Amino acid sequence: MLTSQTTIRVRYSETDQMNVVYHGNYAQYFEVARAEAIREMGMTYKDMEAMGIVMPIVELHTKFLRPALYDDLLTIKTQLRELPTDHRIEFHHEVLNESGKLLTIGRIVLYFLDAKTMARTTMPAALAQQLESYFK
Amino acid sequence: MLTSQTTIRVRYSETDQMNVVYHGNYAQYFEVARAEAIREMGMTYKDMEAMGIVMPIVELHTKFLRPALYDDLLTIKTQLRELPTDHRIEFHHEVLNESGKLLTIGRIVLYFLDAKTMARTTMPAALAQQLESYFK
Amino acid sequence: MLTSQTTIRVRYSETDQMNVVYHGNYAQYFEVARAEAIREMGMTYKDMEAMGIVMPIVELHTKFLRPALYDDLLTIKTQLRELPTDHRIEFHHEVLNESGKLLTIGRIVLYFLDAKTMARTTMPAALAQQLESYFK
Amino acid sequence: MLTSQTTIRVRYSETDQMNVVYHGNYAQYFEVARAEAIREMGMTYKDMEAMGIVMPIVELHTKFLRPALYDDLLTIKTQLRELPTDHRIEFHHEVLNESGKLLTIGRIVLYFLDAKTMARTTMPAALAQQLESYFK
Repeated sequence: MLTSQTTIRVRYSETDQMNVVYHGNYAQYFEVARAEAIREMGMTYKDMEAMGIVMPIVELHTKFLRPALYDDLLTIKTQLRELPTDHRIEFHHEVLNESGKLLTIGRIVLYFLDAKTMARTTMPAALAQQLESYFK
Repeated sequence: MLTSQTTIRVRYSETDQMNVVYHGNYAQYFEVARAEAIREMGMTYKDMEAMGIVMPIVELHTKFLRPALYDDLLTIKTQLRELPTDHRIEFHHEVLNESGKLLTIGRIVLYFLDAKTMARTTMPAALAQQLESYFK
Repeated sequence: MLTSQTTIRVRYSETDQMNVVYHGNYAQYFEVARAEAIREMGMTYKDMEAMGIVMPIVELHTKFLRPALYDDLLTIKTQLRELPTDHRIEFHHEVLNESGKLLTIGRIVLYFLDAKTMARTTMPAALAQQLESYFK
Repeated sequence: MLTSQTTIRVRYSETDQMNVVYHGNYAQYFEVARAEAIREMGMTYKDMEAMGIVMPIVELHTKFLRPALYDDLLTIKTQLRELPTDHRIEFHHEVLNESGKLLTIGRIVLYFLDAKTMARTTMPAALAQQLESYFK
């Protein structure tokens, strides 16, 4: 299993008039966390797009347990529980606040697509090789 | 069953460099559609907050089938399939483009909370009365 | 002079914990208003991009006089005071609430650029022709 | 003069289909940079709101010189050139990319307001004292 974590400071713009982070903004937090997870493996999502692969999100599932507040320094944990064997990759995320309270749970499914044809493809070989070491 | 629909024109700011609507923005589209569904019943979500009730989202589930593009005039369909009997309310949404293609499916669970105590409560009586007529 | 106006309903996601529309979101409102102004002239900004012209914003000036609130139905007025003669075009915007109170003033400068070379260009002839009738 | 700087990694959600950071998102970057500048002085904007002071933006001026791209690690420089003597405070911002190229210039005017009455007030004494040392 691959695990990774990153921190994000809540911006004022991300709050709403309920005085909490607007629920729609967690998609951004998950995205930042996935990008950092990929960076830790020695590649970037930017590299992947430069190689002609895009990764659209096809499913997003989120449970909101407790609110995140302005200026909170959130920890976003990312897990890749299974090594992708085809066009599909699934990430699990958890958002925790500074007291270690679990605020939000996310599960995101993405596809590897060829940017030109939009046909399904698999992850770049270089990334697959990196990932394999985590699943032995 | 209560059904409602509204239209939303995709803004430039809502696209990303994949040339499609950023997946996180559908949460906003669903929110607009729910607000319009409530308005059709003779109340507004703003009224509800003025009455001391807030409705945080506790679950968001989205499937992205096809991309929405800049300047698309989207139709957002909203369904309330069951009459809420406690603090929980669940909406289903569908996003369609101008050709009638189904782009996105959403399911959102919200709670009715007392804005002061943040304790669970039920929907305002006036809204419940309005809703009942749709479920006979 | 060309004038145009459009309405925008404030979304919950656009508020912040100061209980008003987050100041950064007016850029989106102005963008929607410009798109509608161009549409009224029989072209769309989408068409323009399809023709190979992009219009990046090079200056944005905003004065915030009064706050806009959740669910407000805002009127965004757009003015093109001078017919562009080169790569530069300047729009003026005003945001008013339902009581006709002036909330926000904006001035935006954009350039016409060739999407491939990013070199400065001028507006499409078809649009220029449409516009001329407003400046006689 | 007070100067401060912080870094921000461009998120995918912040790009638009012109393949650059959407111009409206710089307001968020400036806001993050101001929050960090205040934090360096031993207070937070969150503290200030807890003390009953809010700081709405009354003017925002931005010039966009070069685009910021996805995954860029931006440096946001913040300057307070004059010690505020009344309800008004003005910040200058510069956004640079990793090659040190100047991308964007911002000037933002904010007011100190009493959160309850929305009457003009001045900055908290503790912050004023901290700031004075930078202007001797």
